[in-house]
Amino acid sequence: MPDPAPPADTLLDAIRAVVGDRGLLTGRADTAAYTEDWRRLYQGRTAAVVRPGSTQELAEIVRLCAAAGTPIVPQGGNTSMVGGAVPNEDGSEIVVSLARLNRIRDLDPIDMTMTVEAGVTLKAAQLAAADRGCLLPLSISSEGTAQIGGVLAVNAGGNNTVRHGNARDLVLGLEVVLPDGTIWNGLRRLRKDNTGYCLRQLFVGSEGTLGIITAAVLKLVPQPKEIEAALCAVQTPEAALDLFTRFQAHDPAAISAFELMSGLGLSFVLKHIPGATLPLETAAPFTVLVELATPRPQAGLRAMLEQVLERALEDGTVADAVIAESEAQRASLWKLREEHSEGQKREGASVKNDVSVPVSQVPAFIRKATAACEALIPGVRVVPFGHMGDGNIHFNLEQPVDADPAWFLAQDHAIMDAVNDVVREFDGSFSAEHGIGRLKPYMMPDWRGGAELDLMQRIKAAIDPGGIMNPGKVLPPRP
Amino acid sequence: MPDPAPPADTLLDAIRAVVGDRGLLTGRADTAAYTEDWRRLYQGRTAAVVRPGSTQELAEIVRLCAAAGTPIVPQGGNTSMVGGAVPNEDGSEIVVSLARLNRIRDLDPIDMTMTVEAGVTLKAAQLAAADRGCLLPLSISSEGTAQIGGVLAVNAGGNNTVRHGNARDLVLGLEVVLPDGTIWNGLRRLRKDNTGYCLRQLFVGSEGTLGIITAAVLKLVPQPKEIEAALCAVQTPEAALDLFTRFQAHDPAAISAFELMSGLGLSFVLKHIPGATLPLETAAPFTVLVELATPRPQAGLRAMLEQVLERALEDGTVADAVIAESEAQRASLWKLREEHSEGQKREGASVKNDVSVPVSQVPAFIRKATAACEALIPGVRVVPFGHMGDGNIHFNLEQPVDADPAWFLAQDHAIMDAVNDVVREFDGSFSAEHGIGRLKPYMMPDWRGGAELDLMQRIKAAIDPGGIMNPGKVLPPRP
Repeated sequence: MPDPAPPADTLLDAIRAVVGDRGLLTGRADTAAYTEDWRRLYQGRTAAVVRPGSTQELAEIVRLCAAAGTPIVPQGGNTSMVGGAVPNEDGSEIVVSLARLNRIRDLDPIDMTMTVEAGVTLKAAQLAAADRGCLLPLSISSEGTAQIGGVLAVNAGGNNTVRHGNARDLVLGLEVVLPDGTIWNGLRRLRKDNTGYCLRQLFVGSEGTLGIITAAVLKLVPQPKEIEAALCAVQTPEAALDLFTRFQAHDPAAISAFELMSGLGLSFVLKHIPGATLPLETAAPFTVLVELATPRPQAGLRAMLEQVLERALEDGTVADAVIAESEAQRASLWKLREEHSEGQKREGASVKNDVSVPVSQVPAFIRKATAACEALIPGVRVVPFGHMGDGNIHFNLEQPVDADPAWFLAQDHAIMDAVNDVVREFDGSFSAEHGIGRLKPYMMPDWRGGAELDLMQRIKAAIDPGGIMNPGKVLPPRP
Repeated sequence: MPDPAPPADTLLDAIRAVVGDRGLLTGRADTAAYTEDWRRLYQGRTAAVVRPGSTQELAEIVRLCAAAGTPIVPQGGNTSMVGGAVPNEDGSEIVVSLARLNRIRDLDPIDMTMTVEAGVTLKAAQLAAADRGCLLPLSISSEGTAQIGGVLAVNAGGNNTVRHGNARDLVLGLEVVLPDGTIWNGLRRLRKDNTGYCLRQLFVGSEGTLGIITAAVLKLVPQPKEIEAALCAVQTPEAALDLFTRFQAHDPAAISAFELMSGLGLSFVLKHIPGATLPLETAAPFTVLVELATPRPQAGLRAMLEQVLERALEDGTVADAVIAESEAQRASLWKLREEHSEGQKREGASVKNDVSVPVSQVPAFIRKATAACEALIPGVRVVPFGHMGDGNIHFNLEQPVDADPAWFLAQDHAIMDAVNDVVREFDGSFSAEHGIGRLKPYMMPDWRGGAELDLMQRIKAAIDPGGIMNPGKVLPPRP
């Protein structure tokens, strides 16, 4: 267990000698932005925020902290949904910001790979890829702020997972500073390499508890040349799933997104967001936003979209549908989806669940979880939305119309428990894409306990025997 | 370190009590097939081959062996290229065959997943998927014998990696018997699940040294509805790469294989294999077999193929090309590729290297490695072939025409060293898809030494502290 005492002045002096004044922030005013998460779930304290300028500097910092037994909290864009990048309250932990490791080291449009440092924002990496005619196929709402290191540490998902997988699926190689300050250079650009244990996938998703990712080799794909989007009104989640399987049978590689929205959630967007309009005749219980994309010119996507929708309209699977006729129309369809969180916020207090189930079980899950929540809190407004194509539903609950927001928010654990009980029935996950961070380690014994958690604890102890890497995150304290 | 003594009779009796007579083979005659690898690189010995009938039986066997300190060698179809599934010579190790765990537990065509036990052959799994209109997109030449457990343990690659990735990329969940006999049930069917360390990817590729995979959830895709194949003569590997990038820019999702063959290697096939014919006017220094496939009906693949080839013929990138006009013609094109090993064998002795480099470096690698081998052994015939689309080249060397085969084979280490020196210059891998097994652990310190091998050793010690799981494979002995 790391020492809960604040770091000694001698350690801070030694760190300053490595990174210079520019690389070290101390004092409440300068460090405040690094000690609170953006959701304001946690307010931590720290004696120092270290901003190394190179992997070598970081390695030296980690060596110093390891020798002193001082814990480290790695931080990228600090956009964690689960408090994964903030220090605790006792002031014993040092924050290491990766922001200055912000070079794109390499981009090869023949290999279709780029080598990016941890502090590059996801948006900057996307733009650098686009500059060379490539697409980095990962998109999340925080991409302007989130940094590659954090994106990989949490295995981010997002809208395009249905086509290109999670962040994990895009990683060919990593550079990591290990808990003893050693640098592991695993920045290989190989599509095939069977030489021992797959270490990179151990660090991806480990949320900074096993080491600090400093750079990565990411896979790219060609930019799409045709994109088509449609908004489809359906009566039930079963119809939405049916529609998904039809597109999947035609060509899963063409589906770049398949997003489900509830009629109620959509109504909040239409009510509160300026400029949001529904291009369909009438509102429906559920609405699907499907987007198809391909790098092939003249690929006939539009014809495929029309064909699938025509059949679905004929047989009643889809009640109404509209296809975007321009980039502006496509953007306005996406606005309906992207403003869901904001619409919910303006409507009142809400409780959020980032859960997943097998794709085939999404409709049954939505029905059962809806019933469970309505039984728990009469008048609660159930507004599920999200990535139906990969079984990841943001199963959100909006307060009853006239309820006290504070009272409703105080029911959050009861609501989460009710939803999670249903998730468990369908062999789902209580954290689909947001990770565990500091918010959910307490849930790990119940969900991933026994052999699985024991393996994780053994791996943690083997790689970080001093326990200095992001303590209190992911794994619960040992009993 | 496990005890080198043979297993005690009391252990064998206890094992028999679990699996019955049917599940236990003893005696040289019955165990012989399990103690030699198919390449005949190793002849081991064992007192017993255990064939458990269920995961629970296997768990009990492992508990007994762990208590006795008796090492276990897990074995699937025993098709390892690197002796990964055979016991050592001292008779101290027990072989565990997964062959009786051969049920397909589940197949869901909406989720596009199947749950398969370790002993199901890859071919049987492919056929079960096809029965339900799905494709298990993994194909290797040993698929009729290789079993899913071994395929995952070694992270098999094959011809379709360029499109669908390695075995690793198809795994959503695993069931594993751990070295202490605990069963880890991680058979989740989720596309998104960020709940702690990604254990499944640690077991995939660990070659049975961390535990025994007993079942897996695999991703499926829809069956292709259009397939097109063409054989293209090119003058240089650079031209082959150029052609690959053109198809990739059009639609990487349509490329199901992109195989490179040398003119010399092709000439061995034409000379020795009955029925093999070249449908091109003249032989060329290199030949490419490209195959496009898509689940979309009327996807226009043929038009795309013709368009790319026409341009390439016009500008001289491709010297000559033929498109398969029937299934029979497509099969005859594939025969030219698939008979490469047999053609080489009939031509004389050969030394094989399963290496990879970044895709963009394949031409430079081939030139440089060819020069290195020709300098080392005058008259040697260089016959590289393989999966150009993922940078994995089987860089094989055929003996000089009049050389003594035994003399040539005795040069194998010198040849491998010469090739690997060039691989290293291009930041490549000395084992792209075959793994490490018993053949290549000695190369690990040189190639993956320092922080990387140290991490692997720590993980091994943490998960298998008694060192009973497949000893001597993957990791070199600690100094």
